[in-house]
Amino acid sequence: MMTTTTRAADRRARAALSRLMEPSDWVGLALVAAVGALDGLRIATGEVNPGPELQAELYRLLNREQSRSQQGMLSEALQRWRPRIKDLDPERDLATIERLGGTVLVPGDESWPVELADLELAEPLCLWTRGQHSHGIPPAERTIAVVGSRDSTNYGNSATGDLAAGLTQKGYCVASGGAYGIDAQAHRSALAAAEPGHWPATIAIMACGLDRYYPAGNEELLRTVASRGLLLSELPPGAAPTRWRFLQRNRLIAALAGTTVVVEARWRSGALNTAHHAAGLGRPVGAVPGSIYSANSAGTHRLLRDGSAVCVTDAAEVAELAGPLDAGAAAEQQVPLSDHDGLSVEDLLLLDALPVRQGTTVEKLSAVAGLPMRTVLAGLGRLEIMSLAQQDSSGWRRQQRS
Amino acid sequence: MMTTTTRAADRRARAALSRLMEPSDWVGLALVAAVGALDGLRIATGEVNPGPELQAELYRLLNREQSRSQQGMLSEALQRWRPRIKDLDPERDLATIERLGGTVLVPGDESWPVELADLELAEPLCLWTRGQHSHGIPPAERTIAVVGSRDSTNYGNSATGDLAAGLTQKGYCVASGGAYGIDAQAHRSALAAAEPGHWPATIAIMACGLDRYYPAGNEELLRTVASRGLLLSELPPGAAPTRWRFLQRNRLIAALAGTTVVVEARWRSGALNTAHHAAGLGRPVGAVPGSIYSANSAGTHRLLRDGSAVCVTDAAEVAELAGPLDAGAAAEQQVPLSDHDGLSVEDLLLLDALPVRQGTTVEKLSAVAGLPMRTVLAGLGRLEIMSLAQQDSSGWRRQQRS
Repeated sequence: MMTTTTRAADRRARAALSRLMEPSDWVGLALVAAVGALDGLRIATGEVNPGPELQAELYRLLNREQSRSQQGMLSEALQRWRPRIKDLDPERDLATIERLGGTVLVPGDESWPVELADLELAEPLCLWTRGQHSHGIPPAERTIAVVGSRDSTNYGNSATGDLAAGLTQKGYCVASGGAYGIDAQAHRSALAAAEPGHWPATIAIMACGLDRYYPAGNEELLRTVASRGLLLSELPPGAAPTRWRFLQRNRLIAALAGTTVVVEARWRSGALNTAHHAAGLGRPVGAVPGSIYSANSAGTHRLLRDGSAVCVTDAAEVAELAGPLDAGAAAEQQVPLSDHDGLSVEDLLLLDALPVRQGTTVEKLSAVAGLPMRTVLAGLGRLEIMSLAQQDSSGWRRQQRS
Repeated sequence: MMTTTTRAADRRARAALSRLMEPSDWVGLALVAAVGALDGLRIATGEVNPGPELQAELYRLLNREQSRSQQGMLSEALQRWRPRIKDLDPERDLATIERLGGTVLVPGDESWPVELADLELAEPLCLWTRGQHSHGIPPAERTIAVVGSRDSTNYGNSATGDLAAGLTQKGYCVASGGAYGIDAQAHRSALAAAEPGHWPATIAIMACGLDRYYPAGNEELLRTVASRGLLLSELPPGAAPTRWRFLQRNRLIAALAGTTVVVEARWRSGALNTAHHAAGLGRPVGAVPGSIYSANSAGTHRLLRDGSAVCVTDAAEVAELAGPLDAGAAAEQQVPLSDHDGLSVEDLLLLDALPVRQGTTVEKLSAVAGLPMRTVLAGLGRLEIMSLAQQDSSGWRRQQRS
């Protein structure tokens, strides 16, 4: 057990490291895994020189063979980190996030999402949060990521709206990436469907510092998420979004959600990246089908084709994929019964043979249906009870169900 | 080897049996399997009494335990067939089909589709044909069934048209059930796309005798199929379509086609029955996705969800499912390359860090990208060669690809 003082130092060190290193900086993550955040920060900033065994330990952690070309791995990393050392000021960053009503979570905190450990070495160093974090982060089994294209279609927006609202009403928490299009629609519908006091109403996992709202067009929405939902990021305040950070952010969406649903995605789309992260973690992935003529469904169809995703068409099917929160959550699709449901083959043949208007004889029915007279007689009795056959002066005929 | 006379007698007997017995009459099919078509007809018509061992042999063929309640199986069947004996006139039926320019095929004929043997005991007794049968029936590997709802939508019709035309152009033969909606569209598009002299242009597998065009609204279409394509049925001339015959006809579609594609189907649809027959035979099944708001796609989504079918969105994907006729048939989907395709992680970080307008220094890039100066310099060289970076008086900036 760490003492309170050690915990505070660990938190401060991880906050600093999250500014020094890009997300998923393997050498940096291995360094922290080997010596801890405090000593890791001392080494990364050049305050302490790494011992001769450290490089070997890093190779072991990274499951790599030590080759001549890789021998400079740690010294290359040190060079990579060096230009950012002068900007390190974790006290300032912690003060910033607190002023924004947020906090920074680190592994070992009670509210640290345990499912992030599935990322193994790629588990983030810390999570900056903002918004309704007093009740913690919902567990993955209750969190469903709804993601997709930024340039969504009306169809995609409708599907997203129905899924996100339905899932929220079923008690799941909808997570997404705060982007335009499907992401924004998912957050909006979750906010609209969430009952008052149901915190967090939705989770936006961002690729930049939480002191900024990105993209700018979503500022109002993200403000609402910060008020009634939760904003999360592994990047410190001030960090700008970059393509690399978006790609790495996707692994966090996949890891924080027990289930990921892609509503619309082009053939090549960041949402597919999230889906592949989720599949890689062994989490269920759903894809919403759409028109074969819509470029925005080419990516979801690709997921369906290659077996990475299950076809989902409504919130109940997503809940079924996620594993229901309670046993009754996955409702069976209701379909009207047909006339011929449950009939034996012989009664079906007989039903087909029965004329609709003018009645006929048992003998004729026997020839038309290809059934012995005895079977026809017994079958007519059964069909009569089921209100499928009736007898009048002209003989036997079909009775239309009202 | 049967002699010519025996073959003619066998053909005549099977033609008669196809009128006496409903499709998939298990006892009748076991009877023919046990004693052949000629003796089977003699027993079925009461001309010859079955020997005491026959019942046991039928149970063996049907893999059933002989129980007290089943002991009357054959005598029940005889009663079932009796009312139709007076209508038997195979010479008349054979003359009718010949007058229509058709013929009747039986197992053992050179043009008998060998793939029907996959149906085992449910292999049809014979196949009545009409149309372009001089070149035989295309092998299953070259035949693709395109089936679906009778009440198809515009979307379903477009998808069917594109698939059927594309598959025909690739050299496949499109088979369907001659019904309204998807079936009709499949036949029409195959007829339109087939090159002159390419026989049969399409195959319609019917649930009634081939002397009638059913449904009546498709008469013109089915006439064209009979002229440039092929009509097939296991039912003799004069036989009316019944629900039972439709269901059994579906097994023939599935068995004659190497691959079955369902374009549109409601939650409960005959097309799903065809798909399940195909899956049961181990043949690939494709399903076309559609709007989650379309009842006509509920059945195809059901197939995708339960894993019975693979998602297919164009003719190339269906051909891939079918196994290409030639190695080059399945064309790779062409997608434009993105700026960042093939870049290393470090070059991607660097590309993200490059400003778009005002140039910047290598030192600043090193801090922003989190990369050592040396890596930045090498990376800028690579990006410059790829026309992704450029240097001017203000420093390094992003170059937009034209």
